[in-house]
Amino acid sequence: MDTISENRSFGGIQGVYRHHSDSCGCPMTFGLYLPPQAATAPVPMLWYLSGLTCTHENAMVKAAAQQHAARAGIALVFPDTSPRGEDVADDKDYDLGQGAGFYVNATQAPWAPHFRMWDYVAEELPRLLDNAFMIDPDRQAITGHSMGGHGALTLAMNLPGRFASVSAFAPIAHPTQSDWGRKQLGAYLGDDESAWAAHDATLLMRESGFGGPVLVDQGNEDQFLDLLKPEALAEAMAARRQPGQFRMQKGYDHSYFFVSTFMGDHVAFHADALGLA
Amino acid sequence: MDTISENRSFGGIQGVYRHHSDSCGCPMTFGLYLPPQAATAPVPMLWYLSGLTCTHENAMVKAAAQQHAARAGIALVFPDTSPRGEDVADDKDYDLGQGAGFYVNATQAPWAPHFRMWDYVAEELPRLLDNAFMIDPDRQAITGHSMGGHGALTLAMNLPGRFASVSAFAPIAHPTQSDWGRKQLGAYLGDDESAWAAHDATLLMRESGFGGPVLVDQGNEDQFLDLLKPEALAEAMAARRQPGQFRMQKGYDHSYFFVSTFMGDHVAFHADALGLA
Repeated sequence: MDTISENRSFGGIQGVYRHHSDSCGCPMTFGLYLPPQAATAPVPMLWYLSGLTCTHENAMVKAAAQQHAARAGIALVFPDTSPRGEDVADDKDYDLGQGAGFYVNATQAPWAPHFRMWDYVAEELPRLLDNAFMIDPDRQAITGHSMGGHGALTLAMNLPGRFASVSAFAPIAHPTQSDWGRKQLGAYLGDDESAWAAHDATLLMRESGFGGPVLVDQGNEDQFLDLLKPEALAEAMAARRQPGQFRMQKGYDHSYFFVSTFMGDHVAFHADALGLA
Repeated sequence: MDTISENRSFGGIQGVYRHHSDSCGCPMTFGLYLPPQAATAPVPMLWYLSGLTCTHENAMVKAAAQQHAARAGIALVFPDTSPRGEDVADDKDYDLGQGAGFYVNATQAPWAPHFRMWDYVAEELPRLLDNAFMIDPDRQAITGHSMGGHGALTLAMNLPGRFASVSAFAPIAHPTQSDWGRKQLGAYLGDDESAWAAHDATLLMRESGFGGPVLVDQGNEDQFLDLLKPEALAEAMAARRQPGQFRMQKGYDHSYFFVSTFMGDHVAFHADALGLA
């Protein structure tokens, strides 16, 4: 594993690292913020999964999360959103291929050889982090934005016991019924829609829900509301009596100005679920 | 004036606006954060001047300043760092020309026609903001990073009574004695070094100091320490008995991870000087 950069931030270290990924069959880059507390003991970890077009870097520089993680004593991991490289398949559209992995294991050509973001985020990267950094693998939580909110919710519900809590900022909430979903799930997983269900937060919420608390924030002036379909997830959460909160935030859009505004609430929510503070 | 974007952020509005600048003879873009308090009454304003290569956008998305401004009830203005455009002079190096205005009025060819950032920041933009937004022009403070820290300190000391307080993050502190300064002051102002003195924070501190409090933060692992020359400014501040603080921050570099870490302190410092809680 190569160290790309390390910068002091709020008393901790914001690092960027690159390693060969067996899952994705290419080099992968991720950001990791270690709070000051990691200097002396393993710390819990909050995953942040990013949205369409993002790399590991967007949230790392724009979400204003480090200050809250430093206060709570939580590490933050910022994975990339897809495999990348000249020999990795891509598409001319921003919402398919590189930068748009959708946190699934592709089974279809031309995506199957590299697009295994589910395995990467659920299995490979956690092992690597546990081996290389002062992380406590028994205390993890997960969040994400847009496509990454979809990833956070679907990972959390598919891996019971893994995460103490899950939250999302403006998640793609019902991809099997949205143009942000049908196109990508069809391309990556094929036409059999039964394979899609494990990657739809609303369907998973209806089916099983989540064993810990859930927090979802959504701006009511989000320019992508029709694609995100928050009403489907809100309905499913309430119908299941899922412990948690769905918050419709007045005046906010889909940008990182929205994410950063509520990041403090989300980190505090996860810190509480992880037994900190 | 055209509105480029407006995003809700911490209950206020982060806007980006473009207008024709008479000073610079070209369109200029700036960011303005209005806190929630500006909805009902004019608010004080904190200027943030950016460093080499930056536009209006860098600090706006990476400095994590809006949360503190919202709490204190202060507007933030993020000017660009130079005139820009195809018919504006430029240089192949990153540290001269577009993105590197150094907050002076150029007198030399080819820069003189457009590079009038001093007039733009000291005169034109304040007038425009006063006319167009809920700003209280009698309550202003100023800060900046690197070249922008140089701009903040030199504007504050050259315009007595204008700013209640001045702060800087890793400022170019003694440009008349640095390769970050001699090259640019020579290019913009000519070979007569007597014209440079008004644009050197250390010389101004020796000559007159500042009528309010001063706060300077500098990382001790800044990769540009030899160019910034903080020791000259620290010595001048102490020799003048200038009220204020010079803080050498252990482990921090020149990046926005450094700036964002201490932004809360700086906004609180200015809020106190402006008479806000």
